[in-house]
Amino acid sequence: MPLIVQKYGGSSVADAGKILSVARRIGAVRQAGTDVVAVVSAMGDTTDELIELAHSVSREPHARELDLLLSTGELVSCTLLTMALRELGHEAISLSGPQAGIHTDTSFGRARISRIEAGRVRRELAAGRIVVVAGFQGITAEDDVTTLGRGGSDTTAVAIAAALEADRCEIYTDVEGIYTADPRIAPDARKLDEVGYEEMLELASLGAKMHPRSIELGGVYRVPIYVASSFSDAPGTLIHAVGNGPSDAFTTPITSDDTVPGRGGFETRPHTGDDTAENQMEDRIKVTGIAYNANVAKITVQGVPDRPGLAAALFEPLADASISVDTIVQNTGGDQSTDISFTVSRTDLPAAVRLVESVAPQMGAAGVVSAADLAAVSIVGSGMQNTPGYASRMFRLLANGGVNIDMITTSEIRISCIISEAQGRDAVRLLHEGFHLDRE
Amino acid sequence: MPLIVQKYGGSSVADAGKILSVARRIGAVRQAGTDVVAVVSAMGDTTDELIELAHSVSREPHARELDLLLSTGELVSCTLLTMALRELGHEAISLSGPQAGIHTDTSFGRARISRIEAGRVRRELAAGRIVVVAGFQGITAEDDVTTLGRGGSDTTAVAIAAALEADRCEIYTDVEGIYTADPRIAPDARKLDEVGYEEMLELASLGAKMHPRSIELGGVYRVPIYVASSFSDAPGTLIHAVGNGPSDAFTTPITSDDTVPGRGGFETRPHTGDDTAENQMEDRIKVTGIAYNANVAKITVQGVPDRPGLAAALFEPLADASISVDTIVQNTGGDQSTDISFTVSRTDLPAAVRLVESVAPQMGAAGVVSAADLAAVSIVGSGMQNTPGYASRMFRLLANGGVNIDMITTSEIRISCIISEAQGRDAVRLLHEGFHLDRE
Repeated sequence: MPLIVQKYGGSSVADAGKILSVARRIGAVRQAGTDVVAVVSAMGDTTDELIELAHSVSREPHARELDLLLSTGELVSCTLLTMALRELGHEAISLSGPQAGIHTDTSFGRARISRIEAGRVRRELAAGRIVVVAGFQGITAEDDVTTLGRGGSDTTAVAIAAALEADRCEIYTDVEGIYTADPRIAPDARKLDEVGYEEMLELASLGAKMHPRSIELGGVYRVPIYVASSFSDAPGTLIHAVGNGPSDAFTTPITSDDTVPGRGGFETRPHTGDDTAENQMEDRIKVTGIAYNANVAKITVQGVPDRPGLAAALFEPLADASISVDTIVQNTGGDQSTDISFTVSRTDLPAAVRLVESVAPQMGAAGVVSAADLAAVSIVGSGMQNTPGYASRMFRLLANGGVNIDMITTSEIRISCIISEAQGRDAVRLLHEGFHLDRE
Repeated sequence: MPLIVQKYGGSSVADAGKILSVARRIGAVRQAGTDVVAVVSAMGDTTDELIELAHSVSREPHARELDLLLSTGELVSCTLLTMALRELGHEAISLSGPQAGIHTDTSFGRARISRIEAGRVRRELAAGRIVVVAGFQGITAEDDVTTLGRGGSDTTAVAIAAALEADRCEIYTDVEGIYTADPRIAPDARKLDEVGYEEMLELASLGAKMHPRSIELGGVYRVPIYVASSFSDAPGTLIHAVGNGPSDAFTTPITSDDTVPGRGGFETRPHTGDDTAENQMEDRIKVTGIAYNANVAKITVQGVPDRPGLAAALFEPLADASISVDTIVQNTGGDQSTDISFTVSRTDLPAAVRLVESVAPQMGAAGVVSAADLAAVSIVGSGMQNTPGYASRMFRLLANGGVNIDMITTSEIRISCIISEAQGRDAVRLLHEGFHLDRE
């Protein structure tokens, strides 16, 4: 029997009516002869409400306690969905992350999946049941509950799909798929039928609706991921290996810290593109989409004497605290001192500033300044690589629109500019229009 | 170091301010040099809200799913209390029922504790931490989460106190102790300084604030239980072995289905009362309090041919469904047929009626009728035993007040009347006044 893993986000299970609607959708798939594992997020704004509750009793809630608290949100939605499935006459059972065998490391708040013991999920499926798993959570070797971080339910779904060697992982959310830009910002944004893992990775990590880890994991374990709306039957977007063979998007292997048994992991394959393919590529629209992330903060360590080991001294404490650093820019001035700037998510800013201020004196830095009101706007497309002119066109479009660029960073398939958040949405529209993304 | 187990009910942790207040109370005990395990219920009306949520997606929520859902209420309160303790500078850790080693049978919704593996609690205490345990929940051998039924947090607290051989179990609630009647019904009700386990058992099972199982368990394992308000420093009521020696209240051993390792369990001791004690007893006020339970429903199986095995045929299916039957009355008429009436809690009535209607035809019964709007009012007092006159005085007081008695049941220390719920509160006041319970 085929097997699919479906993930429903918080907005898809926000109230009783929506939960029953999701149950009908799952039930129809099961009755058509497909085994289903459903992974759910917490209802609506539950997670934010729980965080608010934690802050009502503690200025800085303890990470282990916060994780056990937050894990309740998904327990509520997964038990309610299971009850709704049973109400509709289906055999179903809910499993918490620990019960579903989601084992993680001990990084509370942003735990990585270490392994999945899928025995119980398999037994329940074999017993003819629809299995509903609480997303976003797992358990450590010490029997403590962890959460995988925001968007972690996507990771749960893809990891289970990989462990069970499911035919497909379907992510249901409140948008109909992946667009050329956020449709709420650029009204003429166009839905993509398919996108490669790596392109999606750039779109996702820069503000689209999917957590990048889940896409990494999907790429590593070759799980086709279908993103669609839980509120309509409109076709969604398939994230899979596109272009020249199944591993085209991974000539540079991406890695994932989440490890899952089952499929054999990533196999490197040489890039097989020939001139014909290159020429076709030249004819394609090179920019796939405009990514946008309004949650950007920047820290600058000023006047650091330029000597080896500076970057390590600065970034090791951040890594130890599991704070992700995105863009890094270092400008060496004429006086043998340098400014190092980097971005973090806005939520990590207070902790990051504290850490940086504690190491800045040892580095001989003149000062530490930070800004919380920034955004990242990016053009993404695998067709851009080795093709000059995209960057300069991007900068020109922004300049014409009066948008000042603070920092620039590029990868093989992405060019990003850090700008003021106040101008962020205008920048998305300028670029979407300027690269003609409203047209196929 | 001495060890106490404290239990805080839902009203004691209903909001952030109350949680911080409870944290200060616990912290003060810890700083005075006593180890503390705190057991908490769900905040305020959380459990009712979760049940309502379940009913919004399912007419009859599946018991296993409902338990996993309800268990989240206590996870929220125990993590918040732990965060509050840490905010105040105390070392603390929250443990779910499963993490605290509360093992139960598989009776979802009303699970019984089978054993407590207190290893982790002991390790956390040894590490100098205040341990906050989610009440009301446990785990089966199959790794499924169970709840202990309403009031189960008291049972969690007493069971942990027994397993850890704690010096005392303190139950903090929104009342200042045990009264001679419900003060909301009888305004001149008086607080008791101490009460025996068995008297308290009758008061509790008939509507007072403590779950009878927790008192049974306290009696079996000789755990002194102190009931007081979490909102004031007024002295509460100590439930312990009173009278002639520690086991006076248990000349007839009470039993508990909840089993806990640790203390050696119940040891029978002969009643050592001599004439002096009896004479003192005669001088004491014999009625300790008026118990009241407004949650009573009655089922009558009419016209059953009178033959052996009838009661078994009727009550075995109810026992299998874990439905508690209280009062049972059988009236054999002149025509060799009999009516059997019994009471259940109102919440169990629909399921009980369904079961009874399914066995009634095999019993040859003429019909099944039920009533949901009844109440039980009782006079309780260990001094009443072997002393006639209390029953007749009770019936006279009710008759003078115009209260009709539907059923009567008696035990060594209790006389109960089933009456219309509409007259229940008047009946409590009539009896409280008539037995002069407002006076010491």
